[in-house]
Amino acid sequence: MSVESDLCNALAPGVIVPFAQIEPRYLGDWICHDAEARPIALARPRTTAEVSTVLSRCNQHGVPVVAQGGRTGLAGGATPGSGSVILSMERMRSMEAVDVASSTIAVEAGAVLEAVQQAADRADLLFPLDIGGRGSCTIGGNISTNAGGNRVLRYGMMRDLVLGLEAVLADGTVLTSMNRMQKNNTGYDLKQLFIGAEGTLGVVTRAVLRLFAKPSSVQTALCAVTNYDDVVRLLGAARKSLGADLAAFEVMWPEFYSLATEVAGLRAPLRHGYGAYVLVEAMGTDTGRDQVRFEEFIELALTNGTIVDGVVAKSIRESQDIWKIRDSSGEFQKTFWPYVGFDVSVPIGDIGRFMADCRRRLAARWADAETVWFGHAADSNIHICVRLPGVERLPEEEIDTIVYDCVGDHSGSVSAEHGIGLLKRKFLAKSRSADEIATMRTIKRALDPANILNPGKIFA
Amino acid sequence: MSVESDLCNALAPGVIVPFAQIEPRYLGDWICHDAEARPIALARPRTTAEVSTVLSRCNQHGVPVVAQGGRTGLAGGATPGSGSVILSMERMRSMEAVDVASSTIAVEAGAVLEAVQQAADRADLLFPLDIGGRGSCTIGGNISTNAGGNRVLRYGMMRDLVLGLEAVLADGTVLTSMNRMQKNNTGYDLKQLFIGAEGTLGVVTRAVLRLFAKPSSVQTALCAVTNYDDVVRLLGAARKSLGADLAAFEVMWPEFYSLATEVAGLRAPLRHGYGAYVLVEAMGTDTGRDQVRFEEFIELALTNGTIVDGVVAKSIRESQDIWKIRDSSGEFQKTFWPYVGFDVSVPIGDIGRFMADCRRRLAARWADAETVWFGHAADSNIHICVRLPGVERLPEEEIDTIVYDCVGDHSGSVSAEHGIGLLKRKFLAKSRSADEIATMRTIKRALDPANILNPGKIFA
Repeated sequence: MSVESDLCNALAPGVIVPFAQIEPRYLGDWICHDAEARPIALARPRTTAEVSTVLSRCNQHGVPVVAQGGRTGLAGGATPGSGSVILSMERMRSMEAVDVASSTIAVEAGAVLEAVQQAADRADLLFPLDIGGRGSCTIGGNISTNAGGNRVLRYGMMRDLVLGLEAVLADGTVLTSMNRMQKNNTGYDLKQLFIGAEGTLGVVTRAVLRLFAKPSSVQTALCAVTNYDDVVRLLGAARKSLGADLAAFEVMWPEFYSLATEVAGLRAPLRHGYGAYVLVEAMGTDTGRDQVRFEEFIELALTNGTIVDGVVAKSIRESQDIWKIRDSSGEFQKTFWPYVGFDVSVPIGDIGRFMADCRRRLAARWADAETVWFGHAADSNIHICVRLPGVERLPEEEIDTIVYDCVGDHSGSVSAEHGIGLLKRKFLAKSRSADEIATMRTIKRALDPANILNPGKIFA
Repeated sequence: MSVESDLCNALAPGVIVPFAQIEPRYLGDWICHDAEARPIALARPRTTAEVSTVLSRCNQHGVPVVAQGGRTGLAGGATPGSGSVILSMERMRSMEAVDVASSTIAVEAGAVLEAVQQAADRADLLFPLDIGGRGSCTIGGNISTNAGGNRVLRYGMMRDLVLGLEAVLADGTVLTSMNRMQKNNTGYDLKQLFIGAEGTLGVVTRAVLRLFAKPSSVQTALCAVTNYDDVVRLLGAARKSLGADLAAFEVMWPEFYSLATEVAGLRAPLRHGYGAYVLVEAMGTDTGRDQVRFEEFIELALTNGTIVDGVVAKSIRESQDIWKIRDSSGEFQKTFWPYVGFDVSVPIGDIGRFMADCRRRLAARWADAETVWFGHAADSNIHICVRLPGVERLPEEEIDTIVYDCVGDHSGSVSAEHGIGLLKRKFLAKSRSADEIATMRTIKRALDPANILNPGKIFA
């Protein structure tokens, strides 16, 4: 019997959608779409038991399964190939009631991030993960890619927000570890295997997520500094003065600041020409006193010369205006286009040297190469956009190679947030040793001996 | 050739200590000593390469290897059996300079916790892990047991404090992942495999640890509440008012408070007879303002009836006096002895029901059973001491079974902090499903096919 017939027989009507009826949106993520792919079928299970049936049947047939959440990934991790079964979690989006005492919520993997944020909010709590795709990305996808975003500095990556997990293994085994406790040292912490594994070790079906008290105060400032050494000094001072309330520390270099304020048309709160611009934000529980502390912190940094200029937002509107500058990168393509983008990380103290080295290497190859730099510096995470003026078809692979070689030489990571998927496979070895990759394969073989779970993703 | 000869030939003089010269302290941890064990030899490597040699040779011979840190464990995880090679990390205790920009320190696994705390302190930073064994326990042991302690609420368990790791696999492969970045999504996060694995998947040789800004203010209060529901209400209010500065939330039930203040001879800051006593502590960055916020929080809790009495420490001395009550459990044995102790966790909202159920089950078996309850309630972690008055030789296994059955029935964990080791193996299934345990074994077989790494620990 074909796998398709087998699945149709084993599952309720409507769960299996044949190839001819698969809508095009299932054929890729935001950045990596394969319109030519001919997957065997689309499975839309409603329960963990149905996920288990899909996997065990596909495992028997040796047919690849590509799990999908909201398909908002940026590395091709959810892009199906020909001959695979797409497993969409979109019908498994139920959420249990918030457990206020534990500050947790248990949800199905297909629950949309924004819906989880809203459920927490209704219980007067915060689910802190927040990324651009919040309206369509799912918790299962957030877990499988170990999503990051704007609040990592204070609340951590998705890995830090998951207390319990349920995943289905390749053979259909349902592994339920729906732990709601902070402390649980009873053998191996199996959930870690599935977080950030991009669907290659199991399909996440449910999770217990950590919630937090909502912060009641927010303070935002934009600071100008002379050079990267002062960025590092400012970060040390912010950690010391603001402690656990430090919530954002976003660095923008001059090319970025110019594009944002000149090209994107935003007001420049500080004059041009400084070495770097830093957005600092704190979130606390005591509006009046937090504001005083924050202003004292900025004033001290000005007085002792760590920063050369600074402006503290006096209203939510002013805070939003500062954030608009940081969030304006989507507008750059109006003039800074086409470009090759990067999401890399480098140890914080080495970012300055890495940048100088990377600029030098690019300039040695293309004297007129233009770069824009910005990122979550306190998380070691830097975004880079590279453009060759007048060149419409960029030599993407050559640019990739130069930048990722430089990342590797500075002990950095070729993917801070987005994962490896299909698109960064060939650069994995810049950040991970041969022994690390071999050990990943050992784990993969142990849990998925028939190699049916998202094969070809992370490593070929 | 015998494994001992092989090791002696392969390693420098002094690395291998023959059985006859092994000092008795190597034959167990704090709680599980096997003076009759006849290990083959003790290896005291000075480098990762020597650890690799020990493991690869033992793997070839199929000889078990039991890694040891400071031997301060409480579950027998480091207790060697006959026929094994003890691998002590005590000579690998070097520490690199603190990386202030990254707020990290790279250390060898044998570095003593207190030495790491002091190195961070000299750089005006904090390494927050703190447990009773700080003067002798090692970072490798802290990692292998996923240590917890007094500051988990604010800084997390050891798992949350490790950014990078180096481990040697059973076959001698050196797996180096000395990442210093907060964000790094390049394939599987292999370090998670070795954290909390009690030396059964690899031997940790080095780690990159996270450091934090030192808090500059501490506020401590002792509160009295009527019942457990109000403990939960107080926790919610503390999270809301104190946010990320909430650093301790320790609950003591009346039997504990009586023993501490009557038997241990400490001053009782609040009168006896309340339903429970809660130590609340906050750590911030702004002494004057933090104190005001903290006092307002306690006053509001009094005004709205969440607490029925409370005292805020006005000095470091007063704060220490409150902590002495919490830390007095070591004194109880003067009168409350012998007892069977437990380190369990239960979802926060269920702790009250769990306690009532557990008391009922114990009383049904022994009408005069006496229990003492206390713990890190905000971490879901409760300690229980059970005593049968007049009984010198306690029926330990029967008491264990009653308590752990109850833990299992309330979806709790039979080991919040201490791990499974040898002592809790038979109760692992109360907290983990058969499929979870089978998956742990799959991982174990994949990474250690000859089963030489601490065999018999966690599972038989």
